[in-house]
Amino acid sequence: MTVRVGVIGAGMIGQDHIRRLTDVVTGARVTAVTDLDAARAAEVAASVGATAYPTSADLIASPDVDAVLVTSWGPTHAEHVLGAIAAGKPVFCEKPLATTAEDCLRVVEAERAYGRRLVQVGFMRRFDAGYRQMKQVLASGSIGTPLIVHCAHRNPTVGDTYHSAMAAQDTAVHEIDVLRWLLDDEIVSAQVITPRATSKRFAHLKDPQIMYFETANGVRIDLEVFVNCQYGYDIQCETVGEDGLVRLPDPAAAHVRTAGQHSSAVLQDWKARFADAFDTEFREWIASVTAGAEPTGPSAWDGYAATVISDAAVRSLESDGTVVTADMKPRPTFYGGTA
Amino acid sequence: MTVRVGVIGAGMIGQDHIRRLTDVVTGARVTAVTDLDAARAAEVAASVGATAYPTSADLIASPDVDAVLVTSWGPTHAEHVLGAIAAGKPVFCEKPLATTAEDCLRVVEAERAYGRRLVQVGFMRRFDAGYRQMKQVLASGSIGTPLIVHCAHRNPTVGDTYHSAMAAQDTAVHEIDVLRWLLDDEIVSAQVITPRATSKRFAHLKDPQIMYFETANGVRIDLEVFVNCQYGYDIQCETVGEDGLVRLPDPAAAHVRTAGQHSSAVLQDWKARFADAFDTEFREWIASVTAGAEPTGPSAWDGYAATVISDAAVRSLESDGTVVTADMKPRPTFYGGTA
Amino acid sequence: MTVRVGVIGAGMIGQDHIRRLTDVVTGARVTAVTDLDAARAAEVAASVGATAYPTSADLIASPDVDAVLVTSWGPTHAEHVLGAIAAGKPVFCEKPLATTAEDCLRVVEAERAYGRRLVQVGFMRRFDAGYRQMKQVLASGSIGTPLIVHCAHRNPTVGDTYHSAMAAQDTAVHEIDVLRWLLDDEIVSAQVITPRATSKRFAHLKDPQIMYFETANGVRIDLEVFVNCQYGYDIQCETVGEDGLVRLPDPAAAHVRTAGQHSSAVLQDWKARFADAFDTEFREWIASVTAGAEPTGPSAWDGYAATVISDAAVRSLESDGTVVTADMKPRPTFYGGTA
Amino acid sequence: MTVRVGVIGAGMIGQDHIRRLTDVVTGARVTAVTDLDAARAAEVAASVGATAYPTSADLIASPDVDAVLVTSWGPTHAEHVLGAIAAGKPVFCEKPLATTAEDCLRVVEAERAYGRRLVQVGFMRRFDAGYRQMKQVLASGSIGTPLIVHCAHRNPTVGDTYHSAMAAQDTAVHEIDVLRWLLDDEIVSAQVITPRATSKRFAHLKDPQIMYFETANGVRIDLEVFVNCQYGYDIQCETVGEDGLVRLPDPAAAHVRTAGQHSSAVLQDWKARFADAFDTEFREWIASVTAGAEPTGPSAWDGYAATVISDAAVRSLESDGTVVTADMKPRPTFYGGTA
Repeated sequence: MTVRVGVIGAGMIGQDHIRRLTDVVTGARVTAVTDLDAARAAEVAASVGATAYPTSADLIASPDVDAVLVTSWGPTHAEHVLGAIAAGKPVFCEKPLATTAEDCLRVVEAERAYGRRLVQVGFMRRFDAGYRQMKQVLASGSIGTPLIVHCAHRNPTVGDTYHSAMAAQDTAVHEIDVLRWLLDDEIVSAQVITPRATSKRFAHLKDPQIMYFETANGVRIDLEVFVNCQYGYDIQCETVGEDGLVRLPDPAAAHVRTAGQHSSAVLQDWKARFADAFDTEFREWIASVTAGAEPTGPSAWDGYAATVISDAAVRSLESDGTVVTADMKPRPTFYGGTA
Repeated sequence: MTVRVGVIGAGMIGQDHIRRLTDVVTGARVTAVTDLDAARAAEVAASVGATAYPTSADLIASPDVDAVLVTSWGPTHAEHVLGAIAAGKPVFCEKPLATTAEDCLRVVEAERAYGRRLVQVGFMRRFDAGYRQMKQVLASGSIGTPLIVHCAHRNPTVGDTYHSAMAAQDTAVHEIDVLRWLLDDEIVSAQVITPRATSKRFAHLKDPQIMYFETANGVRIDLEVFVNCQYGYDIQCETVGEDGLVRLPDPAAAHVRTAGQHSSAVLQDWKARFADAFDTEFREWIASVTAGAEPTGPSAWDGYAATVISDAAVRSLESDGTVVTADMKPRPTFYGGTA
Repeated sequence: MTVRVGVIGAGMIGQDHIRRLTDVVTGARVTAVTDLDAARAAEVAASVGATAYPTSADLIASPDVDAVLVTSWGPTHAEHVLGAIAAGKPVFCEKPLATTAEDCLRVVEAERAYGRRLVQVGFMRRFDAGYRQMKQVLASGSIGTPLIVHCAHRNPTVGDTYHSAMAAQDTAVHEIDVLRWLLDDEIVSAQVITPRATSKRFAHLKDPQIMYFETANGVRIDLEVFVNCQYGYDIQCETVGEDGLVRLPDPAAAHVRTAGQHSSAVLQDWKARFADAFDTEFREWIASVTAGAEPTGPSAWDGYAATVISDAAVRSLESDGTVVTADMKPRPTFYGGTA
Repeated sequence: MTVRVGVIGAGMIGQDHIRRLTDVVTGARVTAVTDLDAARAAEVAASVGATAYPTSADLIASPDVDAVLVTSWGPTHAEHVLGAIAAGKPVFCEKPLATTAEDCLRVVEAERAYGRRLVQVGFMRRFDAGYRQMKQVLASGSIGTPLIVHCAHRNPTVGDTYHSAMAAQDTAVHEIDVLRWLLDDEIVSAQVITPRATSKRFAHLKDPQIMYFETANGVRIDLEVFVNCQYGYDIQCETVGEDGLVRLPDPAAAHVRTAGQHSSAVLQDWKARFADAFDTEFREWIASVTAGAEPTGPSAWDGYAATVISDAAVRSLESDGTVVTADMKPRPTFYGGTA
């Protein structure tokens, strides 16, 4: 069986996932594309032999669509995901699930009402081999109960449309999701402080930012977000437990010795850093759809939690670094909670 | 277009490649399977919806087969490859191309007579990201003209069917191929010496062995082959040039500190070490077939060269470590040579 | 010329420094020892052919003493250092310079009144090869203006006399000193938070603690202090600048591969980690005394600053993690300031 | 007690060791200096308050000399060491012990006749912390019986007085000594081959060279000697045993990330690389003299063995890479042997 995927949103990320579903992942085929820009939808659809649809509603309703991929503009995500749930079709929604906690909750409620998980949110780090090794080490018990996590998320540069709140909403949100999963714990508060700013940024941007999170179990997380670090795309994560620590590996890179230096290249791009994770993410998603099973990746609840927590971080940033409690509902039993 | 692949040989490696062509690589489908064991052929064929053929000749001739994959017992490779060439079909042959230099030459001559490259030999290291990084560093000129290469090829253990000549023929042959490609140079002699043997081996086996190779350009290669090293599957390669060196990276592995040790896991298995290389190898092969282009991977000539050089190594081993010249024909212009 | 050193305090650290001045550092000789425990003073003095003195005043006054080393109980440091200043003799005082900021200031004022630097405080990290490499990298400008520092200070275990305030006063005080020097900047506030506590500690102790510091230039420092981390003595320091980062190297350790693991040993002891730094510290101090020059190591002002800042950290710890401003006087021109 | 050292040979290395005995190592004092160049002897002696002697015989005979340090021109070493033995004084002889095996044997015989070890030869690597860690790992049994050793000895450049035989006699001789000690085994043959030569050398020099050694226990050693490698001074050593391997650590160096590269500095100079080893070597030698004990460092026999083995390597180089047996006498019981 080949999963026929309909894609809502044919921009850069949509096209990249269409390429992935076409050229990299077996068992899937993109059969339908829609976009606010109908010409773009037509062009992208044609390139893979898919049909362009005028609206997302048409696409979701199409008998040629088994599963829906939402890669449109963030504020429209919730509407499309709700549409897919209403149609009883599996839906993969790029992060964020929705741009407000309220909209996330609407998705959560719709999925609960449907009675079965249909939604997977596009946080790809859970599929990265390095993070999975970290999770195995934690699960093995060899470093004991986790107490502290140190992280850094660095990009070489960002464009001028990147504004200060995006450090939490677009950048740190990846750590927020992967740490909740890695620790199997919930983040309950956020605080954002601003060190001396780099001079190598657009003036409106607070960069770097340091974010502190606390979890329900009392684990403390510090996360440096530095999106104009110049030297490369670099993701660091170290979890300290009662008996030791585990650290995310740097990507393997040829070691060179020349001109008085040992050296190896730093990646420059998140796409290169997480290319394998994206592939695995879609491979596993397609496998779950093919099997008629619930998705195993980040749930609608994880999407809600990420939004609530990144919102708390933004509020902290906007209130000079006060500690802000994440205003999260109790987790329903439907999502593995007790509420 | 989907490339319909016929597989000759449904043993362990054949089944693994069938899985790869079915589940991992897009654009291909296994449509035909044959095996000396007809029951096995039938079972494996059924598992992927392919047809079992009684003979390789039938399979090669089938209009449902666009390209042939040879994963049968080594001594039968040449016959199947010659059959595919006769049929004008692209053929991927697992290493070795043939078990004798003479048979390799028959393939080479057949392909030349056909007038177009149809054959790719299954040396997967050229597709490994680390070796490709090494090749880029060499091509960049940053370490200068290569002078020396240090290598090690270590397996944790081997079974009792593994005999001393296999160290060259089955194990070192991977380095022989990848170094010819990495250095863009030809190996002209081989020498094999036997250090103190490990006690942790079957008595008939000389293990470890050290192989020395010299290239046409005077580069000297030392290669430790140690197939009962106990601790893991470990591939090392360092090329020293006039201005510096480049070293193959170890696979990325989570770094742990506990109980007084920094540590990270060593892989135990060649399949894990080169899983991505195998995937890339087949992805690129299928892409070349789809494009109707000649294959870009190791050629029949490379298969011939690897056999000649590993034969020289075996003769050195069997003659107490004398230096043995690789008795290779001049490289035809068809294969990028001048003869 | 041999510098004749009088040692006040013949406990463990005093004896270790006496051994160092006797066996490791050339150009010095311990000629005088005093201790509250006269028997211990006599025994230690005899072991190196020195004279035991009944009181520190006698020792300082002795014509056989060119320079004074204070290794007594912390609360007595200030008195002995003041005595040495009054006598116009160079004095090396183990940290802390004094246990209260007021007493530190008395030393500072006495030294200013004397008109020439006589005091060096025993913060040894400035003499560690790794930190010196970091300082060179920072000075070279290659990583640009520093913005953030990430640190960890981990001990395998501590005894039951170690209490929560010591995390700042005895442990973090080393980072406080070395970071002021590394960054050439002043720490202006401190905050201490307490993650989930390890279960592997005495119940009265808050461990680990995370300390946040801010500097006058806006650099933000996070420092994990974890004194029962079990796995080893481990010091981490990473400075992030506008153009890159520099990280303190781990001590060189033989790399081992066995039993499926790459590994190398983690040191278990601060004495092993900083042995060379201690030797260099005393070698440079003796050299300055021999040359009749002012000491180049940490000054009385640095001792004062370290006490003020660690006091601020303790106040934060005791007030549930509020940010506490370091209540430091303006730095006098005598100590390189502008006041 | 202070050991009064007389130094024969006041050239560069002599002056460096005089500085070491004066400024770095406690318990020693240079009291006497002689040199073929009397003016140099006088100048160097004056700089440390020692007496210049007209001849080595006068110096050795002086009642102000407890122990002798030989740092003169290599061909004169044997004569001076024999003089010291005749006088019954401990003597530290920089490598080589003598420039011919015959002269080495004369020293060996003289020492045996004296009946007690007086001679230590200046091979400093046995005192390097990294090699000592390797030896501990081997002694622990964790990697099992050694089978193979891979080494590299690289200098950035050498001057035009460096000729091809020096690769064995001056450069590889350090590995020859340290590997005999590390493995507790004897080298029985040598072979030297010459890869493609670097273009970055004086024309008369064969560089790089690869040396193969075999030990009595059948361990095989490969050693790359590359004295114009351009990029730095770099010493590599990896011992492979039945159960794993141990590798000499690279010197600790601050890790930098900037401009798309991870990097750390490579040392440029053997003095920096082995500075601590030299200090430890002299500290332990002086301790043995002070204690009236036999020296624990490399013996006259070790000096003899190193000369025989490096001679074998030179003969191999001069005979186009034939394997040359090291023509060594049986090891006397006096030196821990059975002859």
